[in-house]
Amino acid sequence: MMTRDALKQIVEDPLSPGGKVFDLTVQGAILVWLVAYCIDTLPDLSPGARQWMQAVEIGVTVLFTAEYLLRLYVADRKLAFAFSFWGIIDLLSILPFYLSLTVDLRSLRSLRLLRLFRVLKIARYSTALQRLRRAWLIAKDEFLMFLFVAVVLLFLAAAGIHHFESEAQPDKFASIFDSLWWAVATLTTVGYGDVYPVTTGGKAFTFVVLMIGRGIVAVPAGLVTAAITQAREE
Amino acid sequence: MMTRDALKQIVEDPLSPGGKVFDLTVQGAILVWLVAYCIDTLPDLSPGARQWMQAVEIGVTVLFTAEYLLRLYVADRKLAFAFSFWGIIDLLSILPFYLSLTVDLRSLRSLRLLRLFRVLKIARYSTALQRLRRAWLIAKDEFLMFLFVAVVLLFLAAAGIHHFESEAQPDKFASIFDSLWWAVATLTTVGYGDVYPVTTGGKAFTFVVLMIGRGIVAVPAGLVTAAITQAREE
Amino acid sequence: MMTRDALKQIVEDPLSPGGKVFDLTVQGAILVWLVAYCIDTLPDLSPGARQWMQAVEIGVTVLFTAEYLLRLYVADRKLAFAFSFWGIIDLLSILPFYLSLTVDLRSLRSLRLLRLFRVLKIARYSTALQRLRRAWLIAKDEFLMFLFVAVVLLFLAAAGIHHFESEAQPDKFASIFDSLWWAVATLTTVGYGDVYPVTTGGKAFTFVVLMIGRGIVAVPAGLVTAAITQAREE
Amino acid sequence: MMTRDALKQIVEDPLSPGGKVFDLTVQGAILVWLVAYCIDTLPDLSPGARQWMQAVEIGVTVLFTAEYLLRLYVADRKLAFAFSFWGIIDLLSILPFYLSLTVDLRSLRSLRLLRLFRVLKIARYSTALQRLRRAWLIAKDEFLMFLFVAVVLLFLAAAGIHHFESEAQPDKFASIFDSLWWAVATLTTVGYGDVYPVTTGGKAFTFVVLMIGRGIVAVPAGLVTAAITQAREE
Repeated sequence: MMTRDALKQIVEDPLSPGGKVFDLTVQGAILVWLVAYCIDTLPDLSPGARQWMQAVEIGVTVLFTAEYLLRLYVADRKLAFAFSFWGIIDLLSILPFYLSLTVDLRSLRSLRLLRLFRVLKIARYSTALQRLRRAWLIAKDEFLMFLFVAVVLLFLAAAGIHHFESEAQPDKFASIFDSLWWAVATLTTVGYGDVYPVTTGGKAFTFVVLMIGRGIVAVPAGLVTAAITQAREE
Repeated sequence: MMTRDALKQIVEDPLSPGGKVFDLTVQGAILVWLVAYCIDTLPDLSPGARQWMQAVEIGVTVLFTAEYLLRLYVADRKLAFAFSFWGIIDLLSILPFYLSLTVDLRSLRSLRLLRLFRVLKIARYSTALQRLRRAWLIAKDEFLMFLFVAVVLLFLAAAGIHHFESEAQPDKFASIFDSLWWAVATLTTVGYGDVYPVTTGGKAFTFVVLMIGRGIVAVPAGLVTAAITQAREE
Repeated sequence: MMTRDALKQIVEDPLSPGGKVFDLTVQGAILVWLVAYCIDTLPDLSPGARQWMQAVEIGVTVLFTAEYLLRLYVADRKLAFAFSFWGIIDLLSILPFYLSLTVDLRSLRSLRLLRLFRVLKIARYSTALQRLRRAWLIAKDEFLMFLFVAVVLLFLAAAGIHHFESEAQPDKFASIFDSLWWAVATLTTVGYGDVYPVTTGGKAFTFVVLMIGRGIVAVPAGLVTAAITQAREE
Repeated sequence: MMTRDALKQIVEDPLSPGGKVFDLTVQGAILVWLVAYCIDTLPDLSPGARQWMQAVEIGVTVLFTAEYLLRLYVADRKLAFAFSFWGIIDLLSILPFYLSLTVDLRSLRSLRLLRLFRVLKIARYSTALQRLRRAWLIAKDEFLMFLFVAVVLLFLAAAGIHHFESEAQPDKFASIFDSLWWAVATLTTVGYGDVYPVTTGGKAFTFVVLMIGRGIVAVPAGLVTAAITQAREE
């Protein structure tokens, strides 16, 4: 039987021999689960293969539960770990499975989606994702501030195009909520082509909105990129 | 009865206890009105709900009228306030409602759109929008200058594509005005897909225009972003 | 009768009283002609209106011919002006009209397009366009160099997608030349939606090409923007 | 008969008279082959023209084989050249042809594609491509790191949209693998328009994903551009 200190080294020190094996096991489990999760969404999967995917789901959940309990056991301050960023991520990556055993079938789909929190566990080992997290801490206030401006701009664009197009295309620009979809697709320059203005007024309005708004809607994305560069230099 | 000085503190000092309540009331009214404005555009709204939306419209207009008169009353220099940026915004956010009571029905739609000036009232309280305004003051001249260049480039692109495509697609590239819509959708890289060249000449021309023009049409948007960064540092 | 020196001041000094009138006349003529050129492309124009547009064309050509001869007359070194950047632009803006009187009807369409050199005359008066010209001198070598790289990359993307898609969509990806159109629309992120991969291999290839190539195809446009910023600081 | 030293000067010194002729011959052969390769993909090519293209293929391969043997002959350390970057490129540009003579017909298509390694030979002579290679050496680690983050983000976006849209559009968002195609087209803002969300939840999710993810997916491309600028300054 191992002592708590020996376990602590394995769990928390990625440079120790046991720690390397422990970390690689967790990372491998995430990747195996990811592949199984994707395959499980294939509509024409054979029942046998689907059972295999569920076996992976159960196996990985057991492994992650063991990992969570182990991390809780070796932590010097149990509560601090339980409410830390990684403690919550670890809990969220196993909770949906246990909830899905107790609740009725209708909530299952949403619980399935929540299992994706498992992917964030890989961020513990990824230098790039840790930089992203630091970048988020740098740019959080500005990002939220200009996200608000971008939303106001999108609303104004939607209200404007609704004014010009609602009569010519009453099905596609029925209300401001429908027009918002156009505003998102246009100002991010995605331009799927499912909705676009057909009146001269609507086209001229699109031109004005694009010349001014494209720069502003790009600001939140630009802040992320700039913050990543700053986080790199630190 | 309150003195003018006490009122002035409430209206103009956002840090005083009364000022906080006053500002939150105005901001809340803008948001409530915004939601009502959007809901009012839903085509299959019940008559009862539509009456509620009109009640919000009248209530918010009364509140904004009271706010405007109050701000005018406490201002030391009445005329300076009336012709200041915020004075004009405050007036424009109530004027369309009163005009809609007097004019005939056909102008109503345009007056509806003008009510959106109300959204700008929120800029008084938003740090991000104040930075945008400062960014505008920094980059105004350059922005207008390169907007002009972008318009000239869009015109040249439209004239070129009209030359190549007007015979193959006489309905979509009928005149330079129609071709301008293609130029806007292409050079901003939105690319809805409603109009695109089909001739070899038109496609080669599109390639040349995109390689050169994309950078130039992006300049106004780039100036906005750069000016926002500069405004942040100040 | 005016002396040559007095004429020279009017033509070449934009700050003299006569120079201001002279410059405004030329600029006004360009704008009037531009509007007439656009209106002339409207397919359902009445014969009367079309005659008016032709009258503008003749009038503006006469004016520009007079301007060209005047500039040639007042220039100290006639040949140096005739072969200078502006001398050539001035000549190119009147030559297509005179050529269209002599040649057969089939070349008329191309000559029509060449008349657009007139728009460049406005660059003499535009600060923004003069900066663009200086930006071009700064970035010319690099721009052409990376334009070449972008073309090589577009070719490789076209050859790759042709390999994956030519069997599934033989009409849209018939040859590498057809596939090039897909490569241009995709790597510039315009994405009209007239051609897109449908096979799994083609979609995976598109992902790889986009992640790497988007940055490289954007380099020429980025160089233009960077050179404009540099030209501004000078 | 030439000495090995004289040959070495011709092959390795681009400034010597013989070296210039040698380099121009190789570059010319690449361009001629490129044109022939493209023309060969035209589906309605006459048999005579197709034979000409095959003659070019054989001729260019013979030339490149001679070049490879010559470079190997004049190299002071044969093995070091054979396993150097350019040695491998030179070998890869002739190997597919010889393999296609020995293997069965089904592998021919893939071997055809591998011949494109020939295009990389031109990088030996292009300053721009050498800068790109240096830029790659600068940004390799970061590029791969954020490519990984972008792939994780694309996966999360695909899993999310699959949750919202798989019931409304079971043919287009059948599995996460199908949804990944949507994620690529959307987050790179290409937006072909073949797949797009139609449910309100899917549209709202698209908005959130675009506002956050566009900046992150653009990071690899941004790193390339930044590294090119850095490589230029060195």
